[in-house]
Amino acid sequence: MLSQLQELFQRIDKSKIFQSFVIAVIVVSALTVGAHTYSLHPTVEFALHWMDVGITVFFLIELIIRYVASKGLKDFFSKGWNIFDFIIVVGSLYPAAGSTIFIARLLRIFRVLRLVSMIPELRLLVNSLLKAIPQMGYIALLMFVIFYIYAAMGSMLFADINPFLWGDVSISMLTLFRIATFEDWTDVMYETMAVYKLSWIYYLTFIFLTAFVFLNMMVGAILEVMSEEHRNAREEQADIDSLPATQGQINELKAQVTELTQLIKNQRS
Amino acid sequence: MLSQLQELFQRIDKSKIFQSFVIAVIVVSALTVGAHTYSLHPTVEFALHWMDVGITVFFLIELIIRYVASKGLKDFFSKGWNIFDFIIVVGSLYPAAGSTIFIARLLRIFRVLRLVSMIPELRLLVNSLLKAIPQMGYIALLMFVIFYIYAAMGSMLFADINPFLWGDVSISMLTLFRIATFEDWTDVMYETMAVYKLSWIYYLTFIFLTAFVFLNMMVGAILEVMSEEHRNAREEQADIDSLPATQGQINELKAQVTELTQLIKNQRS
Amino acid sequence: MLSQLQELFQRIDKSKIFQSFVIAVIVVSALTVGAHTYSLHPTVEFALHWMDVGITVFFLIELIIRYVASKGLKDFFSKGWNIFDFIIVVGSLYPAAGSTIFIARLLRIFRVLRLVSMIPELRLLVNSLLKAIPQMGYIALLMFVIFYIYAAMGSMLFADINPFLWGDVSISMLTLFRIATFEDWTDVMYETMAVYKLSWIYYLTFIFLTAFVFLNMMVGAILEVMSEEHRNAREEQADIDSLPATQGQINELKAQVTELTQLIKNQRS
Amino acid sequence: MLSQLQELFQRIDKSKIFQSFVIAVIVVSALTVGAHTYSLHPTVEFALHWMDVGITVFFLIELIIRYVASKGLKDFFSKGWNIFDFIIVVGSLYPAAGSTIFIARLLRIFRVLRLVSMIPELRLLVNSLLKAIPQMGYIALLMFVIFYIYAAMGSMLFADINPFLWGDVSISMLTLFRIATFEDWTDVMYETMAVYKLSWIYYLTFIFLTAFVFLNMMVGAILEVMSEEHRNAREEQADIDSLPATQGQINELKAQVTELTQLIKNQRS
Repeated sequence: MLSQLQELFQRIDKSKIFQSFVIAVIVVSALTVGAHTYSLHPTVEFALHWMDVGITVFFLIELIIRYVASKGLKDFFSKGWNIFDFIIVVGSLYPAAGSTIFIARLLRIFRVLRLVSMIPELRLLVNSLLKAIPQMGYIALLMFVIFYIYAAMGSMLFADINPFLWGDVSISMLTLFRIATFEDWTDVMYETMAVYKLSWIYYLTFIFLTAFVFLNMMVGAILEVMSEEHRNAREEQADIDSLPATQGQINELKAQVTELTQLIKNQRS
Repeated sequence: MLSQLQELFQRIDKSKIFQSFVIAVIVVSALTVGAHTYSLHPTVEFALHWMDVGITVFFLIELIIRYVASKGLKDFFSKGWNIFDFIIVVGSLYPAAGSTIFIARLLRIFRVLRLVSMIPELRLLVNSLLKAIPQMGYIALLMFVIFYIYAAMGSMLFADINPFLWGDVSISMLTLFRIATFEDWTDVMYETMAVYKLSWIYYLTFIFLTAFVFLNMMVGAILEVMSEEHRNAREEQADIDSLPATQGQINELKAQVTELTQLIKNQRS
Repeated sequence: MLSQLQELFQRIDKSKIFQSFVIAVIVVSALTVGAHTYSLHPTVEFALHWMDVGITVFFLIELIIRYVASKGLKDFFSKGWNIFDFIIVVGSLYPAAGSTIFIARLLRIFRVLRLVSMIPELRLLVNSLLKAIPQMGYIALLMFVIFYIYAAMGSMLFADINPFLWGDVSISMLTLFRIATFEDWTDVMYETMAVYKLSWIYYLTFIFLTAFVFLNMMVGAILEVMSEEHRNAREEQADIDSLPATQGQINELKAQVTELTQLIKNQRS
Repeated sequence: MLSQLQELFQRIDKSKIFQSFVIAVIVVSALTVGAHTYSLHPTVEFALHWMDVGITVFFLIELIIRYVASKGLKDFFSKGWNIFDFIIVVGSLYPAAGSTIFIARLLRIFRVLRLVSMIPELRLLVNSLLKAIPQMGYIALLMFVIFYIYAAMGSMLFADINPFLWGDVSISMLTLFRIATFEDWTDVMYETMAVYKLSWIYYLTFIFLTAFVFLNMMVGAILEVMSEEHRNAREEQADIDSLPATQGQINELKAQVTELTQLIKNQRS
């Protein structure tokens, strides 16, 4: 009987209609989250509350269907996206009432993320984005070192000029991030140039360094993905028989034919 | 007789002189649209009005010539650019007088777009741009999800600090778009940091997320077009006879020659 | 005797020492141009004036040497860089005194550009940049059409709100360029949103359109150069004998060997 | 006995544990540098001072170990990264007390850079970044020429309008760099447009020139690295025997077989 239920649930889980319905519920859930940011009539507020309860219950049921359809606890949690869904759904069980309504609403916002786990194309996209993270790790570390050194220098030199921007090393890093985005960076520079005339060197070297590293990072990222594509393309024709013929092979063939010709010539004589 | 007229119109439609003249009229039409934005002498105003009538009539005649030159209603409207021209020309028939002069002028502005449908190179360019849209669709959806979640969080957390920037979820999305373009984003941040000291985390994660997704989108777009080029290049040599020889083929050849050599050796003995 | 002079001048023109000296004079000339922007002591001012005369004379002599070294008027002016140098040198003959000192100084600034025509690597770089211009022509035209339409709409809708930004179509285009560079674009938007609540649509569509076209332009430029590289690489091995062997050729070979084997088998019987 | 010590030190130098410990000390050293930017309790201040002494001594010992482990002075200083470490460590010996505490602390900041020389991946990254510098040299020179000419023109035309921005050629170059980063560039433009109505031409041509050169630089950089990859890939299969077979070779083979067939046919008759 259980296996029958499991089969039924598997069929439900895989049916296009059910999946479309889940996506629709996620969109509605996103809209209710958005609606809460407007000041609403109490009646609407009340309706939204019960809608929210309905959505929470529906998500819980959907998760149970998916769990039953799977081959047990281990199989279910072996898929990263299932863990992702589980955390979001369980997180939104937090009661949306009383003094903790704020946290409850925050947790409900993340239900929009279920759109990513439900639409296969988005899941693929996010997977490929996650794959790009490690290759950027060391560049991020290098960037951090540059930021840290400049921040330490900045807060040593400019802390007295404007403690709001250069007060300590962490505030300075935020200010440097602002400069890296070119956001009113000249105002920051002109302020310190009034005291240290040569402080433009500090800003210009910093901008050139970060821009240069960033540019090379981008070039590197493009090349990395491209060379991977090449590798994949080459592996596709890993079957030796379909590799292009080499000059070495042709030379061996030539030698064979030459030998043959010699053989026949000898025969003639 | 009708077929004679059709032939004549086809010749007119295809002649370089006629096409150049149409382009010239479009440019003049664009200039009159621009001229209206300056405060002009009544006489000039009057001349512009009659010029505008003349241009409208000319575009109508040109469209009729193109229609007669085509093989009927179905053939004419099967081309997207013809529909494009039809809508623009019909839209500009709206009378440019009385209380609706404003809307009429707005519709006349779009006549400049006919430049795109008249110049083949621009038509090609726009076609290739349109082709690039679908591949960006899912990335746009992912971006929208990120924006929506951050906007919902933003308006929940910061609405009381500055309702002008974080009042509701739609205003917050506009503010986040502003932050994504780095436009005075630090002012927005410093304002909320005065209340929530750690709100810089909100801004920095948002900037990193959008920049990271955008960077990967760009890399993806470049690769997509490149791999398409490769595919086209490969399809060009789809003719098997012009594919490079494979090692498998050479090995077959070698076996054949070896067999032959054996045959002759046997003959000898 | 003249041919002897010509030969001598050719040798001078091509000598590394002479070229280095010319570059040094150009650098000095650039420094004098820069020095004029500081308020100087009359003595230095006087020295600079005579230096300037000296540089002008030197450049004239250098041009004459180059001209004599060439094979006549036609040969000399057939090279674009010679015309470039000629215009700059003749332009700087304008007397740097009296009421026209301003224009004279402006013309002298362009002498710095001679650095480009003197250093072969820079000449190559500029040549390759010039080559990239035509392929960007139609994209520039498309961009102009987009800017023009939005500028006409902008000045129609917003001229009364802020004539300084939207007064007429040309001022509006400048404002739109400012928006395209994200320079305080939200200030412009918030101002018009106070009157037309939905005017954010105008700004967002404009930003998306220009960013989208620009992104595709960049991708296109990269691909264009790359495919050119590929073409060059392929032309290098245009010699048929060094093209990779095709499967068609191998099949012909196989048929030959099969025929041969048949022949020998027949012989045997 | 010395060689035994050398061997021991080599083993220490190469052990994973020692290297991890050095990295840990560098991180602690970075944190103490950062801690100094906060206002601290005297006890902490005192602890930091002795920690700093400890780190300095440790780095000195580590350098000595590395030196003894190397094959002498010449071998040690033949590696760029050793010179790099030597300068940083010796620089941080500067006494951090008295009136020169400021300079001493500045020198200590650079100890964070030792992270780059200790982690092989970062070392590799920096090496590849350094390699990218020369190919950008001439583009940087071209950029400088553009900046210099515009700066000279700018300070000639606009010095009286705003000496703070256009006072002399060096200040003007800083202003132009600001314009190139789009930082409040319209404020600068509107100010000069109030006097010279057409000065927008100056700004727009400058922005287009720099953006155009920069775009081409980026494309160039990407292509440069890519073509290098291609070259490396080609060199990998430099072994002629593994190159793809050419049509010339196949034609030679065909001729051989044809000759052979002729030979047998003759034999038959």
